[in-house]
Amino acid sequence: MNHPEILLKLSCPDRVGLLAEVTGFCAARSLNLLEAHQFTDNEAGWFFTRLRLQPVGGFAGMETLREDLASCASKLEAEWTLRERTTRPRAAILVSREGHCLADLLWRWRSGDLDMDLVGVIGNHRDLEPVARREGVPFVHLPMEPGDRAAAFAAIKRQLNEWRTEVAVLARFMQIVPPDLCARWAGRMINIHHSFLPAFAGAQPYRQAHQRGVKLIGATCHYVTAELDAGPIIDQEVTRVEHFHSMPDLVRLGQDCERLALFRGLRYHLEERVFVHGERTVVFRD
Amino acid sequence: MNHPEILLKLSCPDRVGLLAEVTGFCAARSLNLLEAHQFTDNEAGWFFTRLRLQPVGGFAGMETLREDLASCASKLEAEWTLRERTTRPRAAILVSREGHCLADLLWRWRSGDLDMDLVGVIGNHRDLEPVARREGVPFVHLPMEPGDRAAAFAAIKRQLNEWRTEVAVLARFMQIVPPDLCARWAGRMINIHHSFLPAFAGAQPYRQAHQRGVKLIGATCHYVTAELDAGPIIDQEVTRVEHFHSMPDLVRLGQDCERLALFRGLRYHLEERVFVHGERTVVFRD
Amino acid sequence: MNHPEILLKLSCPDRVGLLAEVTGFCAARSLNLLEAHQFTDNEAGWFFTRLRLQPVGGFAGMETLREDLASCASKLEAEWTLRERTTRPRAAILVSREGHCLADLLWRWRSGDLDMDLVGVIGNHRDLEPVARREGVPFVHLPMEPGDRAAAFAAIKRQLNEWRTEVAVLARFMQIVPPDLCARWAGRMINIHHSFLPAFAGAQPYRQAHQRGVKLIGATCHYVTAELDAGPIIDQEVTRVEHFHSMPDLVRLGQDCERLALFRGLRYHLEERVFVHGERTVVFRD
Amino acid sequence: MNHPEILLKLSCPDRVGLLAEVTGFCAARSLNLLEAHQFTDNEAGWFFTRLRLQPVGGFAGMETLREDLASCASKLEAEWTLRERTTRPRAAILVSREGHCLADLLWRWRSGDLDMDLVGVIGNHRDLEPVARREGVPFVHLPMEPGDRAAAFAAIKRQLNEWRTEVAVLARFMQIVPPDLCARWAGRMINIHHSFLPAFAGAQPYRQAHQRGVKLIGATCHYVTAELDAGPIIDQEVTRVEHFHSMPDLVRLGQDCERLALFRGLRYHLEERVFVHGERTVVFRD
Repeated sequence: MNHPEILLKLSCPDRVGLLAEVTGFCAARSLNLLEAHQFTDNEAGWFFTRLRLQPVGGFAGMETLREDLASCASKLEAEWTLRERTTRPRAAILVSREGHCLADLLWRWRSGDLDMDLVGVIGNHRDLEPVARREGVPFVHLPMEPGDRAAAFAAIKRQLNEWRTEVAVLARFMQIVPPDLCARWAGRMINIHHSFLPAFAGAQPYRQAHQRGVKLIGATCHYVTAELDAGPIIDQEVTRVEHFHSMPDLVRLGQDCERLALFRGLRYHLEERVFVHGERTVVFRD
Repeated sequence: MNHPEILLKLSCPDRVGLLAEVTGFCAARSLNLLEAHQFTDNEAGWFFTRLRLQPVGGFAGMETLREDLASCASKLEAEWTLRERTTRPRAAILVSREGHCLADLLWRWRSGDLDMDLVGVIGNHRDLEPVARREGVPFVHLPMEPGDRAAAFAAIKRQLNEWRTEVAVLARFMQIVPPDLCARWAGRMINIHHSFLPAFAGAQPYRQAHQRGVKLIGATCHYVTAELDAGPIIDQEVTRVEHFHSMPDLVRLGQDCERLALFRGLRYHLEERVFVHGERTVVFRD
Repeated sequence: MNHPEILLKLSCPDRVGLLAEVTGFCAARSLNLLEAHQFTDNEAGWFFTRLRLQPVGGFAGMETLREDLASCASKLEAEWTLRERTTRPRAAILVSREGHCLADLLWRWRSGDLDMDLVGVIGNHRDLEPVARREGVPFVHLPMEPGDRAAAFAAIKRQLNEWRTEVAVLARFMQIVPPDLCARWAGRMINIHHSFLPAFAGAQPYRQAHQRGVKLIGATCHYVTAELDAGPIIDQEVTRVEHFHSMPDLVRLGQDCERLALFRGLRYHLEERVFVHGERTVVFRD
Repeated sequence: MNHPEILLKLSCPDRVGLLAEVTGFCAARSLNLLEAHQFTDNEAGWFFTRLRLQPVGGFAGMETLREDLASCASKLEAEWTLRERTTRPRAAILVSREGHCLADLLWRWRSGDLDMDLVGVIGNHRDLEPVARREGVPFVHLPMEPGDRAAAFAAIKRQLNEWRTEVAVLARFMQIVPPDLCARWAGRMINIHHSFLPAFAGAQPYRQAHQRGVKLIGATCHYVTAELDAGPIIDQEVTRVEHFHSMPDLVRLGQDCERLALFRGLRYHLEERVFVHGERTVVFRD
């Protein structure tokens, strides 16, 4: 029986010979290198690599590999993740009333283009319940009362834990996430903002764009941090607009940017292509 | 002998039958309509039109036309411009040390893609003098001493006047234009800013973009107003960037955006395709 | 009670004063001009206009307007269409097994971005029946037996007629339409081809693209004609690809092009923005 | 004194452990890895890598490195190139009458964005002589008489040899290169074709595009082979066009595509980022 592919992601302070060392480490453990991405940030003095590996005859198994890697990484002061490709991340989607992003994600997930186990959808309104249910995806309604947002977010936290969620996707969730949740989910909570950040952060970006009279609108997929719309950017998309485009036109055109940027950003995250380093990301795109 | 084409630009408060009235006005004066652009801003209640016209037998001449139009426009409370296409606007270019925009504009002007009389180049440094001179274009060096910017801008004003300049192009001029000059040249002074505004206004936009970790950089062509980088936008251009792009890479990639956005914005202005309305523009692109 | 907006599309041999004549015609019939598009193809000597009109007090009604217009158009040797915007075209979608285009059209139609009455979906396989039915859209299975394509297309023709279909959309239908059906539906049958035509016409365009090693792939929305993939093009979309993109990657990336190009092309058609003139189209985009 | 950076390009049949072997080879020879690109074409079973290396203390020099690499590569059945980054390729540009590509390349070369020694320009007309000369670049006029193309190409061959040219750039040269010259310069002669190939190969692509009524035009940078416009593609660029764009408009818009695609393709070649493999290329873009 074939062993599944392995994804290894590792980043650490730069020094001479790192890639040789890491690839040598793999070769010595019967891991055939299918694909290697490497980047050295010279300014920051930091090294990033992502390896796609195929175990071959003589491979000692994931546990041994994990132990060996832990010991090797500790010497390099490296952060790393290691997983078999078949162990797909458990993802939850949070929504409000607008369904274009949710519907798009569901379709792409069904088509096999999002390598995740979709554990459920949380909505602060019931509008999108049928969209989730008709795909056989659990929908949990957790209303967001203006007076009791703390309780609502506590319920969300519980639900995410209950599902053993590994990545949370805010698909036009439209709620400001409290700082403790941001901290708890750092690097694992992905948002789509409907402007090309840092332009038009905050509320009603299409209205802001219309008033400013820009000739391009866009969308930004980023990790959520405590500072609103300021987290590390994973992907962005733009489209051209003109004077004759009304606010509803901007919304319609922007939605295609949102869907694409969110899909791509989430896909990169799921495929272990994204590193967060300070306020920026390294993304080994495909 | 053929009479040259005529460009008519007119904007006024909207009301029923405006386009019929304007096109009827032209038809009654032996002006064949070659091209018509029309836009009604319903929110603002404003009407914009641009007509490209060919005088035919029976045309009474520009002076008569101008008088008739003035009287008609006054009833409509319209702003308008009228010119024969062969009467090309007199343009001056202001530069500092970076020549990529200047070189590009010169080449496109030589190729016949910019319908202007290039009266001269003003530089606050001498670096680009050879670039202008080898094309036979006058170059005037007006240094910008930190202590005496007022005198420098007075000299610029005099030079622009002496050349009877109709449009001033800031091709990476890198100096903040004083408010009185902005007011005097409102709607006739065009700048290229090296970011997709409103993101990264002000100094060192590529550095700001690099620090923020955006995945798109761009350039914005806009009319200069007293508020820095906040004037009405004529055109914008973006390009995708990735984590491995260093600051010099961003500069190199951004320069292509700058050249394209400035060229297109200036071209639209020269061809009477741009209306400024409040903080926004109407641009009948080609 | 307000009369609905009216869309008027007209094309005819060019001559002096046409736009003035047409807009004057409307003004004289209590039709306020909301939007006017005009284009003159000087090479072909042909005039195209699209007017969006609002009837005001004194409007004599659609029947009178239609009669007056017919008489006016006959003098101009014009082709024209006239309809109230609320009378939405009746559209049918033809599919095979791949659902990305169908799902996208259904979502956009539900969102109100496609101004059509969706009368039903015809599939030569049953795969997409659930996708249509869950939106409450009738699905008719008309299998395409290799030996008896004539019968299958006769059944399709009957079904389209029974539904009183006005526009037929081939959303990855993957069948070559017989010439008589092409002729019967000229200018009303819209296809999406998964390449940027004229490159890679015919079968397996993604495979062709992969073999040729192109750095861009795309999709083309066009009217169906008897010559395969050679009909008038309404819209095209492309995306960048690289050497590391496998065939399945091309399919995935190309599907986003297909969805966008088909949606936009169909939208333009439904909003009476498209004129076919010989082998080319005039498209007044929004 | 610092040793300059080294660029190593290597491709060979794939097998387990190749990247580890190659990076280990470098580490053992005091070469610090600055950047690594790797790609495995699984279909073709071929491995491609490009390494940017910095010699550190203990480096034995280029000659020793070259010998060691030759012996290592021979075992791998690899093709490879090795050079110090400061040893810039010697490039010649061939032109006819249209200067937009030449002017652009000259400007970018002057700006330091093309890492080549520009040995001279060959023109079959004298039109662009001043454009080359004012940059201090030798211009050689080798006219192309219809009756004696063989003699003309013999003269071109002699001139390229005399200049010890390493890469020949056809910047709208507009002449069909004879097969023997194509073979002699395989992988080292770069052309810009003014369409997105394979659409509109051959003569007058803008005219073909206009007649077909496409909504996108483009340009393709490719290596020259004996079959016209069919060589391996390095880069492509497209731009949107509409019905109102005349032939001269297409030419103007297309020229920006040509300049960008040719610049990028040439840049990738000069920086040893391009591998030709059969009819396709692997391009490690930056």
